[in-house]
Amino acid sequence: MQLDKATPEQLRQWESQLAADYQAIVDKKLSLDLTRGKPSAEQLSLSDALDGILKGDYKAADGTDSRNYGGLDGLPEAKQLGADVMGLDDASQILVGGNSSLTLMFQAMLTAHQFGLKDAASAWKNDGDVKVLCPVPGYDRHFTVCEQLGIEMVTVPMGASGPDMDAVEAMIKADDSIKGIWCVPKYSNPTGVVYSDETVERMAKLGKIASANFRIFWDNAYSVHDLVDDAPQLACIMAACKRNGTEDSVLQFASTSKITHAGAGVAFMAASATNLAGLKRFLSTCTIGPDKVNQIRHTRLLPNRDALLAHMKKHAELLNPRFEAVLSALDAAFGDNDLGAWEKPVGGYFVSFDTRPGCAGETVRLAAEAGVKLTPAGATFPYGKDPENRNIRIAPSVPAVKEVVAAMDVFVICVKLASVRQKLAS
Amino acid sequence: MQLDKATPEQLRQWESQLAADYQAIVDKKLSLDLTRGKPSAEQLSLSDALDGILKGDYKAADGTDSRNYGGLDGLPEAKQLGADVMGLDDASQILVGGNSSLTLMFQAMLTAHQFGLKDAASAWKNDGDVKVLCPVPGYDRHFTVCEQLGIEMVTVPMGASGPDMDAVEAMIKADDSIKGIWCVPKYSNPTGVVYSDETVERMAKLGKIASANFRIFWDNAYSVHDLVDDAPQLACIMAACKRNGTEDSVLQFASTSKITHAGAGVAFMAASATNLAGLKRFLSTCTIGPDKVNQIRHTRLLPNRDALLAHMKKHAELLNPRFEAVLSALDAAFGDNDLGAWEKPVGGYFVSFDTRPGCAGETVRLAAEAGVKLTPAGATFPYGKDPENRNIRIAPSVPAVKEVVAAMDVFVICVKLASVRQKLAS
Repeated sequence: MQLDKATPEQLRQWESQLAADYQAIVDKKLSLDLTRGKPSAEQLSLSDALDGILKGDYKAADGTDSRNYGGLDGLPEAKQLGADVMGLDDASQILVGGNSSLTLMFQAMLTAHQFGLKDAASAWKNDGDVKVLCPVPGYDRHFTVCEQLGIEMVTVPMGASGPDMDAVEAMIKADDSIKGIWCVPKYSNPTGVVYSDETVERMAKLGKIASANFRIFWDNAYSVHDLVDDAPQLACIMAACKRNGTEDSVLQFASTSKITHAGAGVAFMAASATNLAGLKRFLSTCTIGPDKVNQIRHTRLLPNRDALLAHMKKHAELLNPRFEAVLSALDAAFGDNDLGAWEKPVGGYFVSFDTRPGCAGETVRLAAEAGVKLTPAGATFPYGKDPENRNIRIAPSVPAVKEVVAAMDVFVICVKLASVRQKLAS
Repeated sequence: MQLDKATPEQLRQWESQLAADYQAIVDKKLSLDLTRGKPSAEQLSLSDALDGILKGDYKAADGTDSRNYGGLDGLPEAKQLGADVMGLDDASQILVGGNSSLTLMFQAMLTAHQFGLKDAASAWKNDGDVKVLCPVPGYDRHFTVCEQLGIEMVTVPMGASGPDMDAVEAMIKADDSIKGIWCVPKYSNPTGVVYSDETVERMAKLGKIASANFRIFWDNAYSVHDLVDDAPQLACIMAACKRNGTEDSVLQFASTSKITHAGAGVAFMAASATNLAGLKRFLSTCTIGPDKVNQIRHTRLLPNRDALLAHMKKHAELLNPRFEAVLSALDAAFGDNDLGAWEKPVGGYFVSFDTRPGCAGETVRLAAEAGVKLTPAGATFPYGKDPENRNIRIAPSVPAVKEVVAAMDVFVICVKLASVRQKLAS
């Protein structure tokens, strides 16, 4: 099916056949869901040893009683776990938070904007208008943070090796009100790409051309979430920043949410001493410290990087058949035609699919009517507006493999039907 | 020792004797600490069954998998625990947070100030200057929240039945920029008083005379933290608000921090539907939900209010000898003279002692030199400034009883020495 080469008669035939196929599916009254970027119950069970793992020993390695108040930046062994998760050498650069890296990111951006990470004078709001670059498609919750804080979002396109760095550099040079950029550098949400070494190096140099107090929000949410053994290596941005003298320009985030129990994990921020001090000044006004008991549970379950990577292999074994179901369906349906485009991720939680321009909303609507829930079209763009109305995020982790297969059968027909009808109407 | 009736010769004799007593204590090189308002290790151990209590069953009563993301306002049974802790009938008024009620209070005040609890138009910042009433002496971390948010604090004196309500009402009527008041209504930090029924009723009526969007921050931190069997009952402010049509004017907070593990507990907010919706709008931008696994652990440990109260009795057994050590030392030393004044709390974590005006700072300094750490003078006032320099917060929960006794010996001598020297210099 090559729409752009088809005759009107061919298009009408296809439409008729696809409409019949679609109706047959609607009649099945399915109820399937490809929206949720969260672990399945089987994945969660991999970490059920967490409860009871302390066996009455609540003492941290340094003698701290994990049960009591205090320890704003976390236990030393929890910092080491954060370093293991993020692949960093220096655990002293880590702050350990509560159960949500999104919360740490919000707090860091709130602090940068309103209170200043360096000092009060460094607050973004002092400089008038504030903008943050958002590579698209991207993660909707990053966009929501900016919206809540009244920060204008400026989009920049994602490619196969990360954001378009020519565009990023040009925008930053041209506009002093750009104070930050959101990044998911490994298995980017949703496209699944890993930033190339060159992209990381150019990111690390932004601090030299950007306005003062510029910060990269480096959400390394999928740092160890590989689906293959020979997974791509993400270059270390902090090492690159050190080479370039821009250590203060990057804030790295991660969590165990998609490693252990999604809602009951431990979140981390890695940053320079200046940035850590700035966030701690803020945190000291709104908490007496994170849940250190949960930190110590996690360090006992995952005592070193080898244990962590062995644990992640078990996740991969559960996730791989689901990703294969998505990718083989897409290959079979769209491998030889002009109806869609996608990256083949080897890690993370998503497959990002681009329909022909203008077809994403209708595809999602058709799928919903046929009992398959998809993330709303536009969700991967700031303000929920995909200017080309083409991106759809597919999240296959939660359903069983046969449900993913069934949902993709529906998805494929919906993409085709939406595409053919649009072509007919054009 | 009645300083105001003593002759100069008597004062000099006392000073000489006290200085000798003091030097004898300095020579002992003690190292004692009465600063920490937190549970002792023995108290924490009362809840050590928390780890392992799930025995592999992570399902909430309604079938929710507590391990996964979601549930912004908490599990139903955790809401019931919050209602039990706060003595409320209606668990649907509860939002369950993470491990820190201070965080919920910060988030609620941030939302009220910047984003609006009702809607964007209701944000305090829209009205220009913003002030919050702070009964003093009070809790330093409440003051820090206001300072961080740039909210001006206005003090109002605490009495034996709560804040001076005549003053509170007069100030609110006279000044539209007063948008809130901090309250610790039961076993007030630090004075230990319980608000009288009349105080609660008048608080509930403030919403009728205050400017729009006025909120009472009702930090019921010690709601079940009684030291005696016939503990005073705090009237229910929400019931009083309902009678007065002011349900939106109060936000109640509590946590299990001084019930189970201080740093690893569960925090609660109780409020009207409007206020709950407002906080949830905010929370949806900065978290995917609280740690529900920890919530479910707590509900299994404390399944109903009877279990909760039985648990609190064990805390009282550990705390009572420590409070008795403080109070008997104060009675013996100052019961018959004009050197100090204090309330006798029957719950909570503190004894608040007022020296003669001008003597608190010197008392704390003398104690520190004699190896007894006290909370810095002024800490119980906004901006750390006690205008009369007389309030000292004594926190006896952490040291062993004999350490409290030894520390109070030092405290008593330091108060006397500071007082006599001040009188001599006057």
